[in-house]
Parts: sequence; structure tokens; C-alpha cells
Amino acid sequence: MNLRVVLVEPMYEGNVGSVARVMKNFGFHDLVLVNPCKIEDFGSAMAAHARDVLQMSRSYSTLQEALEGVSLVVGTTGKRLETEQHHLRLHLRVPCLTPAELAEKLNGKEGEVALLLGREDCGLCSEELAICDMVVSIPTAPEYPIMNLSHAAAVLFYELSQVEDGSLDLASRETMLRLLERSRKLLQEISYPEHKLEFTVLMLRRIFGRAELTEREARTLLGVIKNLSWKASVPEENPPHRIEP
Amino acid sequence: MNLRVVLVEPMYEGNVGSVARVMKNFGFHDLVLVNPCKIEDFGSAMAAHARDVLQMSRSYSTLQEALEGVSLVVGTTGKRLETEQHHLRLHLRVPCLTPAELAEKLNGKEGEVALLLGREDCGLCSEELAICDMVVSIPTAPEYPIMNLSHAAAVLFYELSQVEDGSLDLASRETMLRLLERSRKLLQEISYPEHKLEFTVLMLRRIFGRAELTEREARTLLGVIKNLSWKASVPEENPPHRIEP
Repeated sequence: MNLRVVLVEPMYEGNVGSVARVMKNFGFHDLVLVNPCKIEDFGSAMAAHARDVLQMSRSYSTLQEALEGVSLVVGTTGKRLETEQHHLRLHLRVPCLTPAELAEKLNGKEGEVALLLGREDCGLCSEELAICDMVVSIPTAPEYPIMNLSHAAAVLFYELSQVEDGSLDLASRETMLRLLERSRKLLQEISYPEHKLEFTVLMLRRIFGRAELTEREARTLLGVIKNLSWKASVPEENPPHRIEP
Repeated sequence: MNLRVVLVEPMYEGNVGSVARVMKNFGFHDLVLVNPCKIEDFGSAMAAHARDVLQMSRSYSTLQEALEGVSLVVGTTGKRLETEQHHLRLHLRVPCLTPAELAEKLNGKEGEVALLLGREDCGLCSEELAICDMVVSIPTAPEYPIMNLSHAAAVLFYELSQVEDGSLDLASRETMLRLLERSRKLLQEISYPEHKLEFTVLMLRRIFGRAELTEREARTLLGVIKNLSWKASVPEENPPHRIEP
């Protein structure tokens, strides 16, 4: 498993430097920034001997670009409110894991995993969480659940550094997105009710995500959809003809 | 288990504030400082909503005072050199644990546990590690093993927050120190070789430490030593009398 650490709109350069440092402490090097603050002397000082991680980091203006080539997207949330979790679980059905459960899930998998860490003030927004395959949350004290960005990163990297490499080749994000796009197209071809379309596509996304599809399984499903699509596009030989009395 | 976080000669107020914050994130409140740097506005800002932890912290000039009332002293070390660990293990026989192993060890125990975190530049010195009952070390990448103080604290508190309370009442540090003092006195009374004395007392300390004595067991051993001491002080009735031929 390769870990790509994605900081979404970090606001303080000190935190970006600190995250770079603790990445290197746990053997991670791939840092990607989405619309970051300016990183100057202080950020570099906080990185200490991990300035190389900071220098090799890439910046993008959209999350979409930052996720290119990954197989799995893991979001982080500090929101411990029962209602929030309830919402995430019920409406999105994103599995909400502890760091140890996440490490367990990733054990033996192969592929590029993106770990998304949000803004210092409000974390990841709902739209960003919605594109995640899994969400991880650190169990904190209800009295003061809001952790500093780099502290949360330290705990997550500590757990993820214990993940053992494996050979179970997860489907790439590109294949998964193609699979969802084709599913949506198929639903449209069969005149699936427009008002249910988005919800059903999201549901399919969750189902495929929880099933942890391999590349091979995803490609087989793409083949199945292609066949269904052909079948759907062939005009029926004897269309039913209604005769009004 | 009550956790007392002991920062030994912290050099940067920002780190002290950050440690206070992450303590509260994981539900810990008892902060003790030994010869700390001045803590002013920046330290307080880094504590964020854990300023109360900072304000309630106590400062002492010696480690001895900081440890009053604790049952178990856990040291931390970032020194991952095999030789160092070897030294710790063989000469001091301090168990050197991962954070998860430490949490496992503390599960079900009752009492006050001190977690010692050392200076930012050189950690805890050998004399400080020598008085620890256990030593914990976070498994880091050999490439860059030196973690920021508050990041190391975050990982340790994360693991320790998962320790379940129990009722196994560990011997207090006062009783343990009395036990060692009486052992030393007994060895002196029986004219144990002076040059071996310190080493043997340290060895006894390690043995009692690893055995995780309860208060009751420690008091029973104190009774045994008292009896041995009495016996040793009674002059023998018929001292052997050598007759030279």
C-alpha cells in the first residue's frame, strides 16, 4: 500500500510543515496539497529534517486532480456528534472507522490510498466526504474533540505505518469512476426515474466501495454493463401497441 | 488508571501548550512540569481550549518531587539505535515496549501512572531512564526517528486513552522505594560486598518492577525483610572458635 497524504486547503504553513515531519517519522513521503496557504520559512522550519517531503510535494487547485491514480479515498473527520455520524452512516453509508480499524482494513491490500485531511477550522465539507470510500475518525474525549491537524496526522500515520503490504490489487479510481459513469448511463438508457438517479448512483458507489472491488472484478462488471446497454438499445421487435376502446 | 504527564525540562513553550491540548483531546488533565521554560502567550495559544490544563499544571524543580504519589513510572525514548536498546535491555532490564504493548500492560490496573517525556533535544538522560519501571518507544522510520514532542505525546495518549480501568491495585512508589531501601539496608547488615551493592539493588528494582507488585505483596515483602534483619542482628550464641594447632 502506498499512502498519499492530501491536505485540503490547509490554512497554516506551520501545520503543513509539521505534517511533513511526522510523515517522514513514519516512513511516508507522498504529500499533495489542494489550494494550500503560502509555505515559507516557518513551514519549512516546522518540517525540520523533512524539508525534502515538503519540497517534493505537489499542489493542485482541485481535489479531483489531487486524487488522480489512487485506488481508495479515505476521508477524516473530527465530527463526533452522534447525529453527524448517523447522517454519514445512514445517508451515505460510508463506513466510519477508528484508525486501528482502518489499518486492519488496509492490511494485505495493494494500491495507492489517498488520506484526506481537511481545513484546520472546519475539516472536510460534506461534498468532499461524499466522494470518500471510507471515513476515519479518531476517538477523542467529548469534552474537547478538536485535535490539531498535525496531531491527528501523527495518530493516523502511527496506525497506518503498521499496515502490512499485500497483493490484493484494488481497482483503480479511474476504473471505479468509469464503472459508475457507465452505470449512470445505463440507468438513463432504461429511462430510470430522473429524481432517483443520483441517489441510486451514490448507493452503487457505496456498495462497490464497501465490496472493495479488485481491478479485475470492476472490469468484469464494466463488461456486464456493456452487454446490458447493447440489449437496452436494440428496439423491441414487437412493441406493445395499445388500442383504445 | 490515572495518567500523570510529566514533561522533564521542556525547552519550548509552544510544545508545552500543544501537549496540554492533545492531553485534553484524549481526556487527560494532570500535567506536571520539571524545570520548564517560561510559558507565556504562545504556549497558551497552542493549548487552545486546553488552557485550563496548562493553568492547573504544577511545576517542580526535581523529578523526585514530580513523581510523588505515583505507582508506576514510564519513560519514553526516541533512541532507536539497536545498541541503545540493547544497553537498556541488558544492563537495566527495563522492559522496552511499543505504545500498544504499554496500553496492554496497563489494562485492568489501578493507580497513578507517570509518563515521562524528555527534553526536545536529547530526551530523558540515562539516570532518568534508570528510575523508570518501563520504557516506551514509538516505532518510527530509521530514516528520521526523531518526533516532535507533542506528536509523540499524541500517539502515546491515543493508545493510553484505550486502557480500560481495573481494580488491580499496584504498590505505591513510596512503598516500592521503602522496599528497596530496606533491601539495601539488609544487604549492608549482612556485609554484602560493597562493590556489588548498587548493581544488586538496581536488579531488585527491575525484578520488583517487572513483577508489577501490588501494595499488599510489597508490604508482605517488607515484613519478610524485617524478620531477616532481626535475625541478622542477633549475635550468634556459639560463635565458631578456631583453634590453631
